Amino acid sequence: MTQTKVVQSTKRTLSAVPSSKCLSIDNMNPAIKAAKYAVRGELAVKAENYRQRLDEGDKSLPFDSVIFANIGNPQQLDQKPITFFRQVLSLVENPMLLENPEALKASFGYQQDVIDRAKTLLANVQSVGAYSHSQGAPGIRNSVAKFIEERDGFPADPQDLFLTGGASSGVNTLLNVICNSPNAGVLVPIPQYPLYTATLALLNAHCVPYHLDEQKAWGTDIDVMNKAIKDAKASDIDVRAVVVINPGNPTGASLSTEDIKKVIDIAAEEKLVIMADEVYQTNVFEGEFVSFKKRLRQLQQAEPGKYDDVELVSLHSTSKGMVGECGHRGGYFELVGFDPLVVEQIYKLVSIMLCPPVVAQCLLETMVNPPQKGDPSHELYQAEYNGIRDGLYKRARALYSAFQRMEGVECQEPQGAMYLFPTIKLPAKAVEAAQAEGRAADEFYCLRLLDATGVCVVPGSGFGQKENTLHFRTTFLAPGTDWVERIVKFHADFMEKYR
Amino acid sequence: MTQTKVVQSTKRTLSAVPSSKCLSIDNMNPAIKAAKYAVRGELAVKAENYRQRLDEGDKSLPFDSVIFANIGNPQQLDQKPITFFRQVLSLVENPMLLENPEALKASFGYQQDVIDRAKTLLANVQSVGAYSHSQGAPGIRNSVAKFIEERDGFPADPQDLFLTGGASSGVNTLLNVICNSPNAGVLVPIPQYPLYTATLALLNAHCVPYHLDEQKAWGTDIDVMNKAIKDAKASDIDVRAVVVINPGNPTGASLSTEDIKKVIDIAAEEKLVIMADEVYQTNVFEGEFVSFKKRLRQLQQAEPGKYDDVELVSLHSTSKGMVGECGHRGGYFELVGFDPLVVEQIYKLVSIMLCPPVVAQCLLETMVNPPQKGDPSHELYQAEYNGIRDGLYKRARALYSAFQRMEGVECQEPQGAMYLFPTIKLPAKAVEAAQAEGRAADEFYCLRLLDATGVCVVPGSGFGQKENTLHFRTTFLAPGTDWVERIVKFHADFMEKYR
Repeated sequence: MTQTKVVQSTKRTLSAVPSSKCLSIDNMNPAIKAAKYAVRGELAVKAENYRQRLDEGDKSLPFDSVIFANIGNPQQLDQKPITFFRQVLSLVENPMLLENPEALKASFGYQQDVIDRAKTLLANVQSVGAYSHSQGAPGIRNSVAKFIEERDGFPADPQDLFLTGGASSGVNTLLNVICNSPNAGVLVPIPQYPLYTATLALLNAHCVPYHLDEQKAWGTDIDVMNKAIKDAKASDIDVRAVVVINPGNPTGASLSTEDIKKVIDIAAEEKLVIMADEVYQTNVFEGEFVSFKKRLRQLQQAEPGKYDDVELVSLHSTSKGMVGECGHRGGYFELVGFDPLVVEQIYKLVSIMLCPPVVAQCLLETMVNPPQKGDPSHELYQAEYNGIRDGLYKRARALYSAFQRMEGVECQEPQGAMYLFPTIKLPAKAVEAAQAEGRAADEFYCLRLLDATGVCVVPGSGFGQKENTLHFRTTFLAPGTDWVERIVKFHADFMEKYR
Repeated sequence: MTQTKVVQSTKRTLSAVPSSKCLSIDNMNPAIKAAKYAVRGELAVKAENYRQRLDEGDKSLPFDSVIFANIGNPQQLDQKPITFFRQVLSLVENPMLLENPEALKASFGYQQDVIDRAKTLLANVQSVGAYSHSQGAPGIRNSVAKFIEERDGFPADPQDLFLTGGASSGVNTLLNVICNSPNAGVLVPIPQYPLYTATLALLNAHCVPYHLDEQKAWGTDIDVMNKAIKDAKASDIDVRAVVVINPGNPTGASLSTEDIKKVIDIAAEEKLVIMADEVYQTNVFEGEFVSFKKRLRQLQQAEPGKYDDVELVSLHSTSKGMVGECGHRGGYFELVGFDPLVVEQIYKLVSIMLCPPVVAQCLLETMVNPPQKGDPSHELYQAEYNGIRDGLYKRARALYSAFQRMEGVECQEPQGAMYLFPTIKLPAKAVEAAQAEGRAADEFYCLRLLDATGVCVVPGSGFGQKENTLHFRTTFLAPGTDWVERIVKFHADFMEKYR
């Protein structure tokens, strides 16, 4: 991956670099300097600056809006929150509203199931202003367990669930527990969401990359994975876990049940903890999502004994799917097959941070336990949910077909998540121009795209990519087709300029 | 500090300890095993079990309620949230309520300033479901800067503010940046809130303890601090920062402006980053809170040059004070005098976790910018605020006077925060009985107290204390005097039994 400079949005007030500080760039924790996180890096900061300039009436830019296609942040664009969720949350925030249910119904259209749910949640958490159990409120964990049972057809135990502040904090917790020495290594798919490489860098542990197969719809190649393990062992790396992002980020790919089995097989053979990042589990356009937990339980039934010791953690979030409530910072992870003494240590670790945000816990409960057929809020909920799902699919297809029209751009068909990750072939002159700026070619391309169109995407180098290939990741969340056409036109001009 | 076993609230479903796992207690990250956090440890888990048993109708216990005096969690007890805050939050959670302001006013008593504030906040964050800037929404940081300016009489720059998910996550971020090697050390007051020692253990860095002076109202003794630094250096520890908790946790003590100057002097001489944990800044019973930032700016004015390079970070929170909104996980830190290149790295580090909960950011804004005189919500706000403040003071005094009646118990007069930290002298027989159980004597005492009365406090060993002294920390949040009398009676019986 290329070095990505992270700069602040405006000049700092301290202008001269002081010489006699305790903390300097040279003596701070080097692991933090080593970590890279391009999703919120230089491009994102520049995009935010453009947005501010437009807001302030600047007419000098060659575009009239900034499109943040760099980050899966649906409600920053035009996605409306689901009404049932937010009605419930308004009541848990101000329980005094519950004292006048008639007015809630008559003036604001709140249904009885909204009111009932808020009361149940309040009975569970007492107040959203009180610390909860560090694993999350027990009643809410019960709902999550029920959701998992219904999804998979296998039991789930609330004791094995840890509610989190977004999936990111869960990943941080787990990698902290797993990485026990500077020799520790974790298998990470490439391309990947850079949270994984960044967290491993912070922990001074090894990222052991395994490349996904772009030609096979970004599938998992078992030979590649085995070779990565072998090479790592040869370098004295103690490979302890394997990360799988399914559906994929940035690739959007959905793993087949066969691919899932292959990963579980390797984990069983090599004694690896499986970290299944399943935050996009409802963002699946084709076929049905199959969780690692379900597949593992099936395999355990089919071949008793063989998979008994597999350790799996599955992560989920309120930020993605049709929920898209990133700003609330909700999520959970489920531990499967973990040593109880390790689970106790995980509990202690999360207890130091006290508890995940309690409002986010309530939101998670409504996500895993939405209104059912026959409930008064069901019809609206279903219509909103389907509307968001269909909108995402339409936008994904429109973007995909635009990429098909672009010279030197190839893209896998949209399968899921919120992203497309096309490969781009740039003329030699463009690569030279990038080198002259000291930049990777894809970073150069994305910067020019932003400068010319206001569309912010993330270069493939921020996620990792095979040598001599270039990509970028774009979300398909932004409404309309204007911004897509901006990319098409820019691309044609760019190719022309550097031909 | 004694070893504190952390156990889960109920038996885990996995009963046998597996032999062939990847992750075991012996090969997980040893730093996590080393960390101790007694506030949510064995006693808290036992107290929660008692609460569940009472809930389920168990009549066999010698008490009819559990009093959670182990943790500063006001809304778990009877503290009501402040109406203005929660009304605003209900609107940002469900902006559709804003479409009918007349009904909000007529049916629910919402005032115009509540409605206006919610609109302003929504204009700032767009949606509480959208990720914000990783440092926190710019408009909200502006409000925090204004609050700091008004508090201190010195300017504050929103660029130097980082909003956080509670002060704990801020402490974690900063210690991560500061601790650059296994030789790194941080001065921590003893007794302390165990977040500090736990985080240092996680980072494999040294806690350099400096004992507070119980006889001088838990003040800071400059000779003790200097000796701690000297001893640490003699052990090749690179002392990089000094933590100050003011008002103190667990001691409740307020530092004098003279003590603050002494700490700043040492930091300037020894080139230490000052970490000022000021989350209890409004919980001050006597005199006025003076922030480290204000004192530093005064000193910089008085003696130009001498203090120019001092690096200070000040932490604040929505969890304490009269706000008490722990479950929302809100807070901020302000960097003063930090190298801009280091600030960029801090930005990158927090950006990996995306952003603090946006609802909590909105709550923080209402906390730092409450209704002013003349605003329609001001009168109610002020009455609620004063009611909570006066209630805390009354409870602190009642508890204090109960301690004065107890044999072998001595307690400093309540000064602030939410805690009292009395010293207890136990009979030799009690100490022997504790040893027979393999426990520290104060832990033994607190367990017996919980078993006999349902009152949960935290042994002094969880915070650190001078050798051959014993303490416990209790909050003074619980309403009523019944639980105080339970402690008095238990203590008399305990002393009698082991005399």
